[in-house]
Amino acid sequence: MKARVHVMLKDGVLDPQGQAVAHALGTLGFQGVGEVRQGKVIDLDLAATDRATAEAQVREMCEKLLANTVIERYDIEIG
Amino acid sequence: MKARVHVMLKDGVLDPQGQAVAHALGTLGFQGVGEVRQGKVIDLDLAATDRATAEAQVREMCEKLLANTVIERYDIEIG
Repeated sequence: MKARVHVMLKDGVLDPQGQAVAHALGTLGFQGVGEVRQGKVIDLDLAATDRATAEAQVREMCEKLLANTVIERYDIEIG
Repeated sequence: MKARVHVMLKDGVLDPQGQAVAHALGTLGFQGVGEVRQGKVIDLDLAATDRATAEAQVREMCEKLLANTVIERYDIEIG
């Protein structure tokens, strides 16, 4: 089963990478670019064959490794 | 208008970050984890109010700044 995880800084947490991208886009002449936030996307191939098991496993991975839940939020897509 | 861009290494391009995640998950005791690929996700707030304009603008951003199209592919979601 395939899973995709997005890990983003929580709203209100300063995102210097996103700010750097916004600044660079401005320098390149792109108009009308407001806030930019940058995060990570992680695609996983899992042996689990049912959705619920896969989701539970990925949630545990997020809590233990993939996200720093103090400053980051994550969301999980299965399938 | 909001846009989300995913930037991933192309298939066949070595992804050491993904491999490190896969290895760490194994070390933590997670079973049945196959390939892991890690990429970037970039969320943008755009002033453009129609879909086609926004998509064209973001495509240009990807080509010029957000992705290294030699080794990375990108996909764009608008709205």
